Amino acid sequence: MKVKTVAIIGIALFAGVLSVNGPLLSAEIAQDRVVRLAELEIDPAQLESYKVALQEEIETSIRVEPGVLKLYAVSVKDHPTQIRLFEMYANTAAYEIHLQSPHFKKYKRVTLGMVKSLKLLETEPILLGAK
Amino acid sequence: MKVKTVAIIGIALFAGVLSVNGPLLSAEIAQDRVVRLAELEIDPAQLESYKVALQEEIETSIRVEPGVLKLYAVSVKDHPTQIRLFEMYANTAAYEIHLQSPHFKKYKRVTLGMVKSLKLLETEPILLGAK
Repeated sequence: MKVKTVAIIGIALFAGVLSVNGPLLSAEIAQDRVVRLAELEIDPAQLESYKVALQEEIETSIRVEPGVLKLYAVSVKDHPTQIRLFEMYANTAAYEIHLQSPHFKKYKRVTLGMVKSLKLLETEPILLGAK
Repeated sequence: MKVKTVAIIGIALFAGVLSVNGPLLSAEIAQDRVVRLAELEIDPAQLESYKVALQEEIETSIRVEPGVLKLYAVSVKDHPTQIRLFEMYANTAAYEIHLQSPHFKKYKRVTLGMVKSLKLLETEPILLGAK
């Protein structure tokens, strides 16, 4: 009986994980997904402070917002003050919720004087391939 | 005994899935990850053909290459011929293998006359947040 219980729990957990992560195992066709790109130039003197604020914003968004799927932050090689963000939200509603979240508003407020330029690009997903 | 076997398989599968997808459940700190961005301008007359070739390349890469983690293709809103790619590889070796793969070489060959301009950006990951 004990073994059977373990079996059931094991299989249930496996099925649960599959149902959660199933779409990630093959290419995602992104019908509802909202993808936004951002290109930023940061004040060199404030780059480290900017990165701290950005990392806090990303970690909080991923942790507390179910609809924030990816927040990828990179800098252009050999140009550390040129930051690129790739953002993926589950749908338009999730994107709107993110824009109104206290942690996003705090990030915008804290980094206002650090960002020399900001270019936002709305996009149309073609294919979002992931595993 | 049968039940025990099922239990072991269930738990093993669950553990396997966890170990594969575990890092996706929280923010990924990308020490080895290679992230590349590409900005393309496509010949308007060949846009649909280009998209077919791109989608085939993405689907094949994600399916057959263990080290190709993400290949996200989007177009800039209201500018369908402006394509942006976000590419994530497990590490430098995986990236090199991808460049030498027959499907990537085929994509490059087939789309050569379709791409009006191509800008590749190597990057340094700051934080790759995902769930």
